[in-house]
Amino acid sequence: MITIYGMRASGNCYKLQLLLDQLGRDYRWIDVDSAHGATRTPEFLGKNPNGKVPLLELEDGRRLAESDAILCYLAEGTRFWPSGAEPGDAWLRAQTLQWLFFEQYSHEPCIAVARFIRGWLPPEHPRQADVPALIERGKGVLAVMEQHLLEREWFVGERYGLADIALYAYTHCAGDGGFDLSPYPNIEAWLARIRAQPGHTPMQA
Amino acid sequence: MITIYGMRASGNCYKLQLLLDQLGRDYRWIDVDSAHGATRTPEFLGKNPNGKVPLLELEDGRRLAESDAILCYLAEGTRFWPSGAEPGDAWLRAQTLQWLFFEQYSHEPCIAVARFIRGWLPPEHPRQADVPALIERGKGVLAVMEQHLLEREWFVGERYGLADIALYAYTHCAGDGGFDLSPYPNIEAWLARIRAQPGHTPMQA
Repeated sequence: MITIYGMRASGNCYKLQLLLDQLGRDYRWIDVDSAHGATRTPEFLGKNPNGKVPLLELEDGRRLAESDAILCYLAEGTRFWPSGAEPGDAWLRAQTLQWLFFEQYSHEPCIAVARFIRGWLPPEHPRQADVPALIERGKGVLAVMEQHLLEREWFVGERYGLADIALYAYTHCAGDGGFDLSPYPNIEAWLARIRAQPGHTPMQA
Repeated sequence: MITIYGMRASGNCYKLQLLLDQLGRDYRWIDVDSAHGATRTPEFLGKNPNGKVPLLELEDGRRLAESDAILCYLAEGTRFWPSGAEPGDAWLRAQTLQWLFFEQYSHEPCIAVARFIRGWLPPEHPRQADVPALIERGKGVLAVMEQHLLEREWFVGERYGLADIALYAYTHCAGDGGFDLSPYPNIEAWLARIRAQPGHTPMQA
């Protein structure tokens, strides 16, 4: 059985829970509290030298880091990853990767980080002062998503897929970071469509 | 013929030049000066609503953003992307994606950003004060790479591939951001191996 090292309340870790639960796949989950230093111990750094969760460990001990790389690996051969050699599938894969990199480079560093600062750091921490600028940047990110969803149900192609899972993880809890989603009706409708998917499980706070 | 919208001195754009030149593939390059607002014009935002280069445009007008997603798409069916259905190839793809996400999430936001601040912002700009902290974070990133290269010639598998191209782009010019690479002999040897590859072309400053 595969093992996930992760923190349940981290969106990057929750992504894997969402995919695995919807695939109905068995997995072992080992809690690692990255908010309190558990990813910086010598033992954990021996597993992932970059000191981050989630981390996937296969039955034979091989390990894979980076949430969106793990999503792609676990989705191979499933309905969530178009794996054909034809040009249409190659383009769907390319668009999926585009949104996964958008998620990690543009979305997570403001929307997830605002949530972390507000939810995990003390009120007097100097990083609290960063939140207004993160919210301004995050509004631009949400505007890109809102525009993309104007005439689409899902981020890529005609069905729920990896890009939706990856972007759902920190968008659905953006309110924790101080974001108001009511100006983004297409995003709110898309979040509701995801919650209505068979096998959907909520994030455990 | 495909078109790349890009800024020659941007590592994210240079990655595509590196891959395409080594593939010997023809392409049209349209300069877009992202350091001076050219990615925020209404015309460019119509092409990429996230306002970033590089951007790939196919012959039929379809567009793809995010440098590492473009790398994967252009490498499909070439020696740079293991595309077989066997588990060995799936694992090579997974590891490649792991390093591409490491590059965008951990490496670029400190090593490329330090270079941008020092090279493109005026000496009195308040962001100059961020450079020392970026260099400290970047040293941790370089240490992860140095350790990984201790017993390996390339980042993934036994040959030069996409992970090497993506990481080369901003590592080879890390000195521009104030990094000293001499404490990282494995990285320096790896950079030299990449420069010795057939078809390698330098970044145009």
